[in-house]
Amino acid sequence: MRSKSWLNRHDNSQLLPSTSIQSGSSFSLQTTTENWFKYIVKAHPHHSDYGGVVWHGTYLRWMEEARVECLNSMGLEYADLVNLNCELPVVELALRYHQSIRMGNTAIVKTRLSDIQGVRIHWDYRIESRDEKDLYVSGVVTLVAVDRHKGKIMRQLPSILKDALIKK
Amino acid sequence: MRSKSWLNRHDNSQLLPSTSIQSGSSFSLQTTTENWFKYIVKAHPHHSDYGGVVWHGTYLRWMEEARVECLNSMGLEYADLVNLNCELPVVELALRYHQSIRMGNTAIVKTRLSDIQGVRIHWDYRIESRDEKDLYVSGVVTLVAVDRHKGKIMRQLPSILKDALIKK
Amino acid sequence: MRSKSWLNRHDNSQLLPSTSIQSGSSFSLQTTTENWFKYIVKAHPHHSDYGGVVWHGTYLRWMEEARVECLNSMGLEYADLVNLNCELPVVELALRYHQSIRMGNTAIVKTRLSDIQGVRIHWDYRIESRDEKDLYVSGVVTLVAVDRHKGKIMRQLPSILKDALIKK
Amino acid sequence: MRSKSWLNRHDNSQLLPSTSIQSGSSFSLQTTTENWFKYIVKAHPHHSDYGGVVWHGTYLRWMEEARVECLNSMGLEYADLVNLNCELPVVELALRYHQSIRMGNTAIVKTRLSDIQGVRIHWDYRIESRDEKDLYVSGVVTLVAVDRHKGKIMRQLPSILKDALIKK
Repeated sequence: MRSKSWLNRHDNSQLLPSTSIQSGSSFSLQTTTENWFKYIVKAHPHHSDYGGVVWHGTYLRWMEEARVECLNSMGLEYADLVNLNCELPVVELALRYHQSIRMGNTAIVKTRLSDIQGVRIHWDYRIESRDEKDLYVSGVVTLVAVDRHKGKIMRQLPSILKDALIKK
Repeated sequence: MRSKSWLNRHDNSQLLPSTSIQSGSSFSLQTTTENWFKYIVKAHPHHSDYGGVVWHGTYLRWMEEARVECLNSMGLEYADLVNLNCELPVVELALRYHQSIRMGNTAIVKTRLSDIQGVRIHWDYRIESRDEKDLYVSGVVTLVAVDRHKGKIMRQLPSILKDALIKK
Repeated sequence: MRSKSWLNRHDNSQLLPSTSIQSGSSFSLQTTTENWFKYIVKAHPHHSDYGGVVWHGTYLRWMEEARVECLNSMGLEYADLVNLNCELPVVELALRYHQSIRMGNTAIVKTRLSDIQGVRIHWDYRIESRDEKDLYVSGVVTLVAVDRHKGKIMRQLPSILKDALIKK
Repeated sequence: MRSKSWLNRHDNSQLLPSTSIQSGSSFSLQTTTENWFKYIVKAHPHHSDYGGVVWHGTYLRWMEEARVECLNSMGLEYADLVNLNCELPVVELALRYHQSIRMGNTAIVKTRLSDIQGVRIHWDYRIESRDEKDLYVSGVVTLVAVDRHKGKIMRQLPSILKDALIKK
């Protein structure tokens, strides 16, 4: 085994407690997406730290990449959304590190849209070994739609975004 | 104001729900440290993203730096601990992003040891404006003591670490 | 065109002056590899800076990834080499930035082994648009083989590395 | 000694060959600054790689920070310059890595303005041990002044920048 387990075995099956942020918006949608979007990554030297494993902050890069590519698979290119004046900054995240990934190993970043509450978009994450038998990291990330010019949270999701997320 | 607020005002006073990880170890210590360790940072171009503000993953770098320097202020140099066969990897973290920090601005990363449960060490974080009036990021991070050679969680904190943390 | 040109057009065809480091070793090999190894990358938000383009240091990550994958295509997994006590740290690099890459765009990182002088391994780089019509970055990188345990430069390349590089 | 030397001793005193980029502008200034601007850094876990030393790309972050702070010491805040529509992207850089820096160690990033050729600004770098006896990295970086709105290289340096650089 080339990865080290930091959490006890019984922790591996625990999920993070779901975030419970209140939203002032009336628009709310519980998605029913069961399928994970899968994004393959490899731990290169620049991802590693002195321990020979992936540095804990590196995962946020991979999670962002997986999220952008997941949106892309829904027909929405994130850079286009930004050009249309809408950004989706992260406003909340929570991660648990179950096992580390050694430099040179590959992994699967699995993500899915878990919930939309007004202009808040919740994503689930599981980073696993290629055979999906080992869980390295689990987590949740919340984005919010922001009007770039005004620098303020939008009152509702822009149509292009809502359409892409719902049809999915 | 050069930073943008992503969360509603009433969110700013909310703290993250405390983590409630069970520990199998009998050693448990509730620290009474009230004082924050303060670490000044400046948002340079490489910390920023396309939005002109600090990228959300950058904060993990600053939080790690503040934690290492806080330990150092307690008389413990992290690199020495590693040379003594003990690593303190992050096993859990949760962050809320209240306002963004624009490129060129400075901020204070405030951290404190909040709790020790067996070999788990919990830290609180608040990243604020220099005048401490604006809250940018709040969060919690949990470390665990790992035996480098064995690649396993230690049964108890090494004396050098326990002594430094408790005397504080 | 979504990238901006920082250098004049006539600069685009200029190559970097070749490095001329002397090597004390008698083993020297001029490779005749003409073909570029190609590695596709996409500029994600975390690669960008306040200007909306790829931050200049990001390219070193992509170049390292392309180099590791190029070695892999030669039958050599870099992590295995490290486990065999040999590291290949960068000892010299030079880059020219011809045009920037906007967030959301893809590019090709082209690399090839250009020369081996003793235990020094020289690589050429060209980072181009997908249609290979625009040049974004050109550069050279020199690695040296280091004995991990001794912390010293090796007297000669380990067989596993030499065989992989030469047969290519 | 906690750092490892990758280059032979006689390499340590070698400087990089000066870059010789032609500039179409008539404005040219050879600065006479002999004093180095000094910026202290510490190698934290996130700066390190699997080898336990600073990853080679990390230095570009420190060099950028030192450059921004050096400009600041001349009375010019880089973020203000950007708000005034002028960016200074890196168009060329060359680095030599003489010795690595171990995680936990501190170093001095020394930089100075070496030359101004039209809208090109050349900087020298030396990254040394705190006692200035060991040289870790030496290098040169060239910036160019770009009009943000037009996305083009400026015909001349903006007054605010020229005044700050020359009075220095």
